[in-house]
Amino acid sequence: MGQQAAPVEETLDPQDWSAMRALGHRMVDELCDYLSTVRERRPWTSVPPATRARFEQPLPTSPRDPAEIFNEFRAHVLPYPSGNIHPRFWGFVMGTGTPLAALAEMLAAGLNSNVSGFDDAATLVEAQVVAWLRESLFFPSASSGLLVSGGSMANLVGLAVARNSNAGFDVRAKGVQAAPRPLTLYASVETHNSVRKAVETLGLGCEALRLVPVDAEYRIDLNALRAALAADRVAGHRPFCIVGNAGTVNTGASDDLHALADLARDERLWLHVDGAFGALASWSPALRARVAGLERADSLAFDLHKWGYVPYEAGCVLVRDAARQRMSFDVAAAYLAPARGGLAPEGPKLSHLGPQLSRGFRALKVWMALQEAGFDKLGRLIQQNVAQAAYLAELVRAEPELELGAPVPLNVVCFRYRDAARALDEAALDALNAELLVRLHEDGIAVPTYTRLRGRYLLRVAITNHRSRRADFELLAREVVRLGRELLASRG
Amino acid sequence: MGQQAAPVEETLDPQDWSAMRALGHRMVDELCDYLSTVRERRPWTSVPPATRARFEQPLPTSPRDPAEIFNEFRAHVLPYPSGNIHPRFWGFVMGTGTPLAALAEMLAAGLNSNVSGFDDAATLVEAQVVAWLRESLFFPSASSGLLVSGGSMANLVGLAVARNSNAGFDVRAKGVQAAPRPLTLYASVETHNSVRKAVETLGLGCEALRLVPVDAEYRIDLNALRAALAADRVAGHRPFCIVGNAGTVNTGASDDLHALADLARDERLWLHVDGAFGALASWSPALRARVAGLERADSLAFDLHKWGYVPYEAGCVLVRDAARQRMSFDVAAAYLAPARGGLAPEGPKLSHLGPQLSRGFRALKVWMALQEAGFDKLGRLIQQNVAQAAYLAELVRAEPELELGAPVPLNVVCFRYRDAARALDEAALDALNAELLVRLHEDGIAVPTYTRLRGRYLLRVAITNHRSRRADFELLAREVVRLGRELLASRG
Repeated sequence: MGQQAAPVEETLDPQDWSAMRALGHRMVDELCDYLSTVRERRPWTSVPPATRARFEQPLPTSPRDPAEIFNEFRAHVLPYPSGNIHPRFWGFVMGTGTPLAALAEMLAAGLNSNVSGFDDAATLVEAQVVAWLRESLFFPSASSGLLVSGGSMANLVGLAVARNSNAGFDVRAKGVQAAPRPLTLYASVETHNSVRKAVETLGLGCEALRLVPVDAEYRIDLNALRAALAADRVAGHRPFCIVGNAGTVNTGASDDLHALADLARDERLWLHVDGAFGALASWSPALRARVAGLERADSLAFDLHKWGYVPYEAGCVLVRDAARQRMSFDVAAAYLAPARGGLAPEGPKLSHLGPQLSRGFRALKVWMALQEAGFDKLGRLIQQNVAQAAYLAELVRAEPELELGAPVPLNVVCFRYRDAARALDEAALDALNAELLVRLHEDGIAVPTYTRLRGRYLLRVAITNHRSRRADFELLAREVVRLGRELLASRG
Repeated sequence: MGQQAAPVEETLDPQDWSAMRALGHRMVDELCDYLSTVRERRPWTSVPPATRARFEQPLPTSPRDPAEIFNEFRAHVLPYPSGNIHPRFWGFVMGTGTPLAALAEMLAAGLNSNVSGFDDAATLVEAQVVAWLRESLFFPSASSGLLVSGGSMANLVGLAVARNSNAGFDVRAKGVQAAPRPLTLYASVETHNSVRKAVETLGLGCEALRLVPVDAEYRIDLNALRAALAADRVAGHRPFCIVGNAGTVNTGASDDLHALADLARDERLWLHVDGAFGALASWSPALRARVAGLERADSLAFDLHKWGYVPYEAGCVLVRDAARQRMSFDVAAAYLAPARGGLAPEGPKLSHLGPQLSRGFRALKVWMALQEAGFDKLGRLIQQNVAQAAYLAELVRAEPELELGAPVPLNVVCFRYRDAARALDEAALDALNAELLVRLHEDGIAVPTYTRLRGRYLLRVAITNHRSRRADFELLAREVVRLGRELLASRG
């Protein structure tokens, strides 16, 4: 066997483990320093041109000392975050993360598990996490679930199962083109764009997604929904699914999910609920009623990297009928067939529940984060964010130069600055508030973002941040008034 | 503003940062110990019932000390990995990871960036990584690319762009049901099941995926492909895409990608190449010719968490025509519209290139890993794995009781034990090798997996492991013979 001289064999393991260990300690120290002082820094700073140019260096051919790579990270990456770990970041809907969950990611990547349903501990960790999430959202214990990258993928999975289960023919084999009647599904105009994206990806075409008007509180108009269903049935379409919202992205509104569940039952439709952040209101006994009925969904999409305070990426999809989820994604292959024992015996395969075959160990950070806080405290923090939203709304109502733009049913506040003299028209108010938002970011004050509701440009504050305090919202209200006046004055 | 007493506000930040810091140090130490001694342990061990039961504990309601959670991890998770970090793991196609990349995951999760195309450093890191990958695979600099969870998602994205670009009508708006003629696409029977899964998810129906026979070397039969195309055109179908393979999962075969690119050009078809692991053979000048032509693909899917040695999850998709990728996934939303400045100004949005809106900072581990090794060394390691496969094939050929089951064009070796007396029939050989595989796992010797080729059960060794040495393959060959004899003897 060994006539020829064995070649020199290389590895990517460090030659000097003690140097790698020391670097790891430095990284932990740096990260703890960074996170414990985050309040002292600006929420966001534009990347300067010199740093930008660093990221145009050519492909590295030779090895580089890890400590040097870390120094470059410290100098050029760490100072320019997107800002969502800061106590005054309330843009889009972004999470905060926790230090322990960040450490967990290191352990997960070191163990480097491919969480596929093997006979290994990582698979058990994910099963336990999914069981906890199921229980915390009052889903039946026989339902199935899967951790995914986030709400977009959770919506894609839920709607794929809806399509495959309720189209009335074998979609997996025949494709949407074989539909005897055009498939249609229903959601309010306030539904997140990831639902539209999923509908397009699934080959249904976005025209199949009927966007139903909302009431004054931005909830789906049930009469309009019934009318749309009836019209489509008359026109020979095949309605197969309703998408309900637990917490819309623009205002935090939740549809009447019990009414949608009743309607879905009566009309034999699949009920998918997008609860990206709103579903987790269920973790607070005080808030649970605001998203009541989500436990009746056939499929439920939600994130842990938003209101679950877990770092990116962590979302989840639950499906009431476990067999239907499996029947949407199980594709056999000779090289994946179970063995009689060993690492990969017979048993449920997680890749049969969603689009990914290889799956990382994101369950570990969720497992550690949920245990560290416990669900009671997580529920209190969610309630705290909702109380902060109510408090900000109160500050806005109390200030004549501020104006609420929408009801505040949960953790999202839409408002704007308006001149005390009421002299500006809508277009001028839009322009002024747009400028004001840029100033809030660029002056390092706070990061809300914006939306448009009924034509109006509104500052939008979405609170899924465990570092925010009431004083941060007082500062925001104060600074918006100050900047509004300043911008007004500069207009002459 | 503050008449009422402010409530006590909670946070998830640790009360005691020094304890968190100390725990982080302990975790780094533990991980370095664990990884530097991995060779001394068994590749895989079944999870014992007592540990299994630990993961059935109910939902945690109260907080728990992070150090205690880590202790539970040490006792019940760390000892039971899926095994792919071990030098003698060659199952499925799984990666090994590196210590620095694991540390990078901690930093990424601490920074907790949502890599969306904001004015932040994380977006620049991903852009740089994609530029390096593009250059390393000889894709044009104007092509676009995106890091994704892995090959399954990369195939889904590539095929979604193919469908949306080349169906001849507006699939995003109208859906697959509006196809004037049934859409069809083509791939060899050796194509990975994630392609079928993507085709089903995209609403095309797996019957639209024409599985073309392979030649003796498991490469797509070009004459059969041409015949299938012609027959479908005669039947009134609309062929829109060919899927080529750079490294099939069963044997590591690569289709003639130049021939497929020529054919795609002549027939106006999209060429998608699944190069999950095989694409990275391009990183070795010595191996590049084996996957020649992949740089002509319209879209290319590949993983970094396999042969790139980066921890899970890290895949990538490249699309030659950047506009077509964007036109497949850009869905507008009022709350996401760019501002005039600040964090989220005008500019390319990464969520417009794939299904995810929120995207984690997986680019950081890739950025650090590629720099630490440099592409020259990565190319040598890939070549080393190919040389190890050739060496194992040589050992198999030299041993009368072992039999190669397929050619070894890259890094995958399929072989089996067979009795010296040649008395066993095929069914008995299948059963014996199946039992032998379980023994290899359960005795803690090594973790190959298996596949079936032309009806035969074969042990399958896929080498994407930077810790493996030639001696490990010598041990494997020796142990397979020993176990084979032992199992033969026990049959009486």
